[in-house]
This record gives sequence, structure tokens and C-alpha cells, in this order.
Amino acid sequence: MAENDSLSEYLASAVEAAQKAGEIIRKGFYQTKHVEHKGQVDLVTETDKACEDLIFSHLRKLYPTHKFIGEETTAACGATELTDEPTWLVDPLDGTTNFVHGFPFVCVSIGLTIGKVPTVGVVYNPILNELFTGILGKGAFLNGNPIKVSTQTELISSLLATEAGTKRDKKTIDVCTQRINNLLFKVRSLRMSGSCALNLCGIACGRLDVFFEIGFGGPWDVAGGVVIAREAGGLVFDPSGAEFDITAQRVAASNPFLKDAFAEVTSPTLLWPKAAPKY
Amino acid sequence: MAENDSLSEYLASAVEAAQKAGEIIRKGFYQTKHVEHKGQVDLVTETDKACEDLIFSHLRKLYPTHKFIGEETTAACGATELTDEPTWLVDPLDGTTNFVHGFPFVCVSIGLTIGKVPTVGVVYNPILNELFTGILGKGAFLNGNPIKVSTQTELISSLLATEAGTKRDKKTIDVCTQRINNLLFKVRSLRMSGSCALNLCGIACGRLDVFFEIGFGGPWDVAGGVVIAREAGGLVFDPSGAEFDITAQRVAASNPFLKDAFAEVTSPTLLWPKAAPKY
Repeated sequence: MAENDSLSEYLASAVEAAQKAGEIIRKGFYQTKHVEHKGQVDLVTETDKACEDLIFSHLRKLYPTHKFIGEETTAACGATELTDEPTWLVDPLDGTTNFVHGFPFVCVSIGLTIGKVPTVGVVYNPILNELFTGILGKGAFLNGNPIKVSTQTELISSLLATEAGTKRDKKTIDVCTQRINNLLFKVRSLRMSGSCALNLCGIACGRLDVFFEIGFGGPWDVAGGVVIAREAGGLVFDPSGAEFDITAQRVAASNPFLKDAFAEVTSPTLLWPKAAPKY
Repeated sequence: MAENDSLSEYLASAVEAAQKAGEIIRKGFYQTKHVEHKGQVDLVTETDKACEDLIFSHLRKLYPTHKFIGEETTAACGATELTDEPTWLVDPLDGTTNFVHGFPFVCVSIGLTIGKVPTVGVVYNPILNELFTGILGKGAFLNGNPIKVSTQTELISSLLATEAGTKRDKKTIDVCTQRINNLLFKVRSLRMSGSCALNLCGIACGRLDVFFEIGFGGPWDVAGGVVIAREAGGLVFDPSGAEFDITAQRVAASNPFLKDAFAEVTSPTLLWPKAAPKY
């Protein structure tokens, strides 16, 4: 099978798994949820677990030699090293806090890395029925229609997205709000909608112009969205302006016109050090 | 005609106007927009103007003795005093920045005050097809189904919404980010989605637990949502914990369990002074 055929087949399999998981999420979204707490804001629901089981079992059956890294299994069994092997990185329910509260930005995120490069991406919001897909070199799509990043060229007219994250120690919150303070002078406005994967897709379809997040869960939050954002013409980079590292729990994305202006804001300050991989 | 019949008729008329305006918004949302700038972030689009004309003309024809206050006419003609007369307060397109960027939180907001009390409210998001309605004493509804505020009793487990607003002077931004800093220690997480009226409806349907905004455009941003939030069981108050003043460009809302805990955070600080009406 030619490589492109394989990639198309991988995408189709991931879409199928995401849609099945999406059905579970949609049902749970409108019901009272039984929620376990892992720390103050790190919620894990039954839905989360059921979705990861479903997606892993679906993809493992089809691709038994592939590797798998998921939020739930990592939480339970510790970190798994990302290798050059084809590896599925799965966040079965990104936006868990939104899910618990009924705020409609929730999604399944599935990414496949080959040689550590994000190659196939699926991000599916079953509440708004938006399916974002991308294959390296083959473009990005929303519900089958091609998508492109915004054409905004001025940072001051840009819509910026970020997240407050889940850590609540004083240093993290102070740095977070200081970053927001600095950036509010430089952009049009700020959105926080609670899903890293959907923020990357927001860049991809031009709803957002710039996005950054520091300290999210792991590579499963970004592996799918990174393919989609890049294939829609976006740039994905470290918030300091340095090269993106999928294991670093740090991501920024923008259309191609805004990266330099954004990096100019972030690079000279102590608020944006290039972090060592923590995952 | 009995008063309740009148109120139901007023609501039906407002829904009709909102749905017609919603069609215009929906069309514009997916097109390239011709945008005028009023300051850095205060965008007014052709759609905004067309929607206000449509809504005012629709309601004026039916209720020629009523008063009308709208964002666009106020911007053009100066402030109109809110009196005890039945008065329609209309934001034809709340979430203008979202509209310009294609971020799906946009709505029509229509409120009717009688004796200065918000009495009938309609908030319609034509992109997500969500119609929120409320009549004083008659409950609140989303697409015809009754809605209720959340049952969250702990501030630390609550989802808070606020907005960065449109002012970009140093004092406003510093106070805004300092408020966010203080609150991030007290709540689960923070959302900023760019529509005051939809945030009030988010409280009403329990997607959000606490919301505050200071320095929004005028009473047209809140008149509709206030009825809907209250009729869903929510409390609407000044962010300092004091009584809500519809002309003060300051609003907070929560379910009934969280107001005191929120006001405890805000009342002792200099960040939340009770502002004099500016509108």
C-alpha cells in the first residue's frame, strides 16, 4: 500500500473512532455526571475512560503494531516515551471541565505521529457537530470542507486565545495573569474556551488568530490539532518563538503573518522561558 | 388585555424580530465583512446597523408608544435616559468582535423594561441556533425548554466567566488582570467568550456558575439576559455585591448559592468600587 493510502486509511479509522466516542460524549453531556476528582480542577469522568477504551480498542484491532499514548492510561500507568514508531496520541475528552459544566467546547482529539512528526489529526466536537481533520501534506478540513487560517496581519487586530490551565499555585497564576496583562495591550481581545485541541482548530479555520498554552496535560492535547493547524496554513511553535516540542506541554499557533509579532512580545521577557520537557 | 397576555405578546414580537435579525447575522457570519472601526476594538459592522434598523422598525410598528434604546442609535445620537415607560433595549449584535472573527458566540439581545425593571428578554444565537427567552414571573427557556441555573454550591468548583472588555488603557487592563489573578485562586476555571448577553444566558442554563463584567457598552447588553438569568433562578447583582443598576455598565450573575462567596472575594478590595452610572 502506498504511504498516502495508508495515511488516508489511518485518518478514516481515526474519524470512525472519534465519531463513536463522540456519541458517548454527547449522551453524557446532557446527563448528570458522576465525576471523580484528581486534584482541584483535573476532573476525570466515566465518559473520559469509556471513550479512551473505545478509541484504543478500535485502533489497536486495526493497527496492532502501532504504539498508543493516552491521557487516561498515562495518568494511571505513568509516562510512555514517544518513539519514532507510528504512535497514536489520544485525548478521549479534551475540555473535561467544560464537559462537567455543560459548556459546549468539548472534543475527542486523536493524532498519529510517525518519526515523532504529527502526521494525521482528528478533532471532533460532538456538541457543535464539528469534525476537523488533517493529513500531513494533504490539507485540513472542517466537516469535509477545506479550511484556511485567517489573513489577519496585525497583532493589534488579532483575536488571541489562551487558557488559565489547571495549576493554582501562586507562581503559576501570577505568571499566567502577567502574560495576559502584557498581551492585552498588543491584541484586539482574548478568548478562553477551555479546550487546547479546539483552540488549535480555531487557528486552523481562522476563528482565532493567535493561540498559546503552557502547562497543559500532555502531547495527546496537541498531536491532532497540530496537523490540522499546520495543514490549514498555520504555524505551530513554542510560545517563546522557539521550535515546537510536542513533549514540552507548551504550544503556540498562529497564521503565518503573526508569529514574528507574537514572538517579539514574548521573547525578551522572563515570562516565557523555554521549558525543559516535563512529560 | 390582561398584563400577562401583553407580556407574552411582547415576547412573541421580540422573538420574531430576533429571528429575522438572526438571519442577517447568520449570512454575514460566513461572509467577508466590511468593517468600520470605532476605536481599536469597538467594531461596528453593516450587519449590526441592518439588524438594529430591522428590530426597531418591527417593534415600533407594533408598539408606537414604547421607547427605544439601542447600541447603534446611542452611539450615533448620544445617550437616551431610561424612564419608567415600557422601553425596548436592543443590542442588535452582541459579540461584534466574535462576529468579525467568525467565533461562534454572537447573538441578538432584546430586553423590555417596564418601570425600569427588566421584564421581557430574548437572546438569540443564530450560529448555534440557541434561542433564550424569559418573562418576569414566567420562567426562562432555551429553544422552548425550561432552564435552571447550576446547583454548584462551592466557589472553588465553579466555572467563572468574564471579559477583557474593549478599553486598552493601562489602568483598566491592570485592574482587569488583577481581578482575574485574585479570582483564579478561588474558582475552578475561567472562560472568556466575548458576549455579555450570552454569558448571562450561560448562567441561566447552568453552563457557567458565576459571571461578571465591568465596562461593557450599555444597558442593551444586559436587559434581555437579566430577565432570563433571574427567571432561571439566578441572582443578578453589582460585582461589588451591591444591588444591580442597569445603567451602571457593571453586572454580575450567579446561581443563588454562590453570590455571597463571590461578593466575599470582591467586596473588601479596591478592585471592585461601586461605580457611578456612566451611561
